[in-house]
Amino acid sequence: MNQKHYKLEQLARFIQGELIGNPELDIHGLASLAFATDKNISFVNGEKYLEQAKCSKAGVLIVTEELKDHLSSNFSNFSNFLVVKDPYLAFATLTHVFEPKREQFHIESTAQIHPSAIISDSAYIGHYVVINENCVVGDGTVIESHSKIDTGVEIGQHCFIDSHVTITGFSKIGNNVRIHANTVIGGEGFGFAPYQGQWHRIAQLGSVIIGNNVRIGSNCSIDRGALDDTVLSNGVIIDNLVQIAHNVHIGENTAIAAKTGIAGSTVIGKNCILAGACGVAGHIKIADNVTLTGMSMVTKSIFEAGTYSSGTGLFESGQWRRTIVRLRQLADVPLTKVIKRLDHIQTQVESIESNLKMRK
Amino acid sequence: MNQKHYKLEQLARFIQGELIGNPELDIHGLASLAFATDKNISFVNGEKYLEQAKCSKAGVLIVTEELKDHLSSNFSNFSNFLVVKDPYLAFATLTHVFEPKREQFHIESTAQIHPSAIISDSAYIGHYVVINENCVVGDGTVIESHSKIDTGVEIGQHCFIDSHVTITGFSKIGNNVRIHANTVIGGEGFGFAPYQGQWHRIAQLGSVIIGNNVRIGSNCSIDRGALDDTVLSNGVIIDNLVQIAHNVHIGENTAIAAKTGIAGSTVIGKNCILAGACGVAGHIKIADNVTLTGMSMVTKSIFEAGTYSSGTGLFESGQWRRTIVRLRQLADVPLTKVIKRLDHIQTQVESIESNLKMRK
Amino acid sequence: MNQKHYKLEQLARFIQGELIGNPELDIHGLASLAFATDKNISFVNGEKYLEQAKCSKAGVLIVTEELKDHLSSNFSNFSNFLVVKDPYLAFATLTHVFEPKREQFHIESTAQIHPSAIISDSAYIGHYVVINENCVVGDGTVIESHSKIDTGVEIGQHCFIDSHVTITGFSKIGNNVRIHANTVIGGEGFGFAPYQGQWHRIAQLGSVIIGNNVRIGSNCSIDRGALDDTVLSNGVIIDNLVQIAHNVHIGENTAIAAKTGIAGSTVIGKNCILAGACGVAGHIKIADNVTLTGMSMVTKSIFEAGTYSSGTGLFESGQWRRTIVRLRQLADVPLTKVIKRLDHIQTQVESIESNLKMRK
Repeated sequence: MNQKHYKLEQLARFIQGELIGNPELDIHGLASLAFATDKNISFVNGEKYLEQAKCSKAGVLIVTEELKDHLSSNFSNFSNFLVVKDPYLAFATLTHVFEPKREQFHIESTAQIHPSAIISDSAYIGHYVVINENCVVGDGTVIESHSKIDTGVEIGQHCFIDSHVTITGFSKIGNNVRIHANTVIGGEGFGFAPYQGQWHRIAQLGSVIIGNNVRIGSNCSIDRGALDDTVLSNGVIIDNLVQIAHNVHIGENTAIAAKTGIAGSTVIGKNCILAGACGVAGHIKIADNVTLTGMSMVTKSIFEAGTYSSGTGLFESGQWRRTIVRLRQLADVPLTKVIKRLDHIQTQVESIESNLKMRK
Repeated sequence: MNQKHYKLEQLARFIQGELIGNPELDIHGLASLAFATDKNISFVNGEKYLEQAKCSKAGVLIVTEELKDHLSSNFSNFSNFLVVKDPYLAFATLTHVFEPKREQFHIESTAQIHPSAIISDSAYIGHYVVINENCVVGDGTVIESHSKIDTGVEIGQHCFIDSHVTITGFSKIGNNVRIHANTVIGGEGFGFAPYQGQWHRIAQLGSVIIGNNVRIGSNCSIDRGALDDTVLSNGVIIDNLVQIAHNVHIGENTAIAAKTGIAGSTVIGKNCILAGACGVAGHIKIADNVTLTGMSMVTKSIFEAGTYSSGTGLFESGQWRRTIVRLRQLADVPLTKVIKRLDHIQTQVESIESNLKMRK
Repeated sequence: MNQKHYKLEQLARFIQGELIGNPELDIHGLASLAFATDKNISFVNGEKYLEQAKCSKAGVLIVTEELKDHLSSNFSNFSNFLVVKDPYLAFATLTHVFEPKREQFHIESTAQIHPSAIISDSAYIGHYVVINENCVVGDGTVIESHSKIDTGVEIGQHCFIDSHVTITGFSKIGNNVRIHANTVIGGEGFGFAPYQGQWHRIAQLGSVIIGNNVRIGSNCSIDRGALDDTVLSNGVIIDNLVQIAHNVHIGENTAIAAKTGIAGSTVIGKNCILAGACGVAGHIKIADNVTLTGMSMVTKSIFEAGTYSSGTGLFESGQWRRTIVRLRQLADVPLTKVIKRLDHIQTQVESIESNLKMRK
């Protein structure tokens, strides 16, 4: 790639930061504190990175307003700073400045596009992309090589669809949506009617509706609804290898980390955070503002906002085996009764003791 | 898509249902009770949907014979019904009636097919499909765009292979098999011999044998056997993101939900149900008619039919942390002895009390 | 495929084994003990396979030196043996002898390769492969159909990249690396800065660095780093459907089984074994020589080599529900105090009893 570079005063403007130091300094990129050179800008994301920051070779540090008054004492070997409210947000903004961007938007000659499809003149369609009947692709949208946009799929503006993505099931996708490589949107839901010992397939007739500013990682499966639609609301972000089953609804700005699975017809609220590898049963509801820690197992609806967890944690394996032996005994040990019996016996013993004392 | 529509009497014939109402009624599709309009047919899947059904705007309801006698009292604002034994099965049947079907079967000009491959004249081969030496594709089979059918793979009749599927390892696939997008069949099993601190790859020489009426979801990995074959028997249904390791055998009509993984050489019986995200260890056996609830962890063979479960369930996180602290103490607390000691002490105390009474 | 065949004396040389029997015997392949015929060679991997071996129809058995002295007693119906130190390693070696190998190395006419890319004359580039600007592909490397090698990616010598692989994010891949079908290397990490209730995307500017002799299964996601790189060291082997998040480092010769996920910035040591479906939290460290059993949940750093486990194991579901009820009571039951109280009460009771005896 052609390495981008900017003067420090330009970067200060992008993040609306206060510049302390040399405005003409030429910056070639962002870097972590550990690996930054004098051509790099780095950021101090809170007190706990202070010691690491002091040893950094970065040419510029992004710091908080709180740190500003102590720059000379803390960072005597640095001479360039950008002072902002939220260094992590400033860093996020600058990643977009240094990110390589596609410059040419056109349709590669090898793309197979059905004549009925409507493709914006400002879209990029990569090599060997296949777009079927009645599809729509909006302005500024990039569809990378080999992706398959099946019949009736509509994709909004300024989306990024990486390679080998399959979008089918008449899915409708909003604006500024990012879908990473090898993900499948609108695949058939897992619907079967059992009858006389066999599974009878239920053809899935619903679709997938994806709002604006949604992000879906690589190797995800988002199934189309059985009759109604599977819905990802505006601002939902999803990591890699996530399963969203048919008819699931995910509320606005909910974040779902890698390897999580949501079973059919479950409704998840707004602003939830599901950490990695959670499993959520079907046909339940999760309230707004619920956080699930990693590997949580949700089998019932959650009605209260809050943080929830599952699992035994990690044990040294010998200790784990002994613990599991006890756990298997637990069902037959009336724990709460044990305490009551202890209390009762203690009372008896004390009564006997005072009785004996009196007899002395 | 061209929306299909049918007269109600046609639909009644498809599902062998008793028609009550207007046989000429024009029906444009299936819909859920909540979203149905007067052009839609909906179904009442048991008593618990009764209240929801009463408020539906559906033009027709599929109901059970049990409900038939109470139609006027329960559904006074409906005038059209189909009465059947099993409304869910009738619904499953009707989804196929309304499902859009491919009408043209041919080989797209961009498909790369080795001259030695035998492709039925009635198969459809999509754009950019690659089919290598000695492959066979049967009558009426659809292979969607970009799929890769590697050397020696054989696919039966009336199969559906969605886009970006990779079939390799000389896999043999039966009739009426559906494989959804981006799934890999016959990839190399994870076989390595440890020697002097390094992993020595074992080239996998077995294959994958898939029976008839098997269904595999999207983003699955079904590995080829090391020497013998990995086998999915007739009627097996598999959801998305499922891992089936080398040499695994799955018995007839077993269902495996999303995100489950089966480790190498394990044999699973017939008519089992593995819910989502289960993990099954390698080299074990699971009997017929075993059900595993979601996220079950199976480390030993299961010899008895029945339902099995794992995990702690979900806790509010503060409560969870306190519970885990106790769980960590459990290994050192002789639970069953506690009860015995309590019993023993109680006996002692009672004996003392009666002794004291006698002395009065 | 053209079935390969070898004389027994050739096979003996490949594995440096002692030949007992007919050196001219024609062997058509490896087979398991159960399915071997008289044209096959099979192996006895330790004492526990002895009984099965005795019933095998294999033409040749690979056995240990320990078994050599008892061949006539144990295997009276066999006349051909190869005697080696490690039969499993010998078997691993022979799989490579019988594995079908690609014979022609060239670039298929349908591959789209940017003029700036440097492709070795001895590489094979399959149909519909797309290779972008400034890529490098080394000697003897095979890239199967439909794979996408994005801008700036470099791939070493003698690698095997199966179909539908996406390599992006300027990843650098060493020699003798195998990447199986539909895997994504260098996809965008899941990095977002929360601000005013929304998620602000952090463009990922790091890369993925993969050493030599690394193996990655199918449907994996290995994300590029945020600023620094994600690193897989020499000799790492990874199974299918594995998630490696941004900035993770995996040490040499560590093995990771299917469905495991490693969250961002975690560092895993050398020679570790992570069994299937483990979940490892972000920003932690795992020491060298750590083994995690299946479905382990790691939320804190592991500083000591050893074996670690998680989970409750499997229960019959009724028993499981009863156990979970007790587990939920556990937080409120002071287990260690119960034992202390029991000890205390017992002392009291004994003291009362001796007191009473003395009074007699």
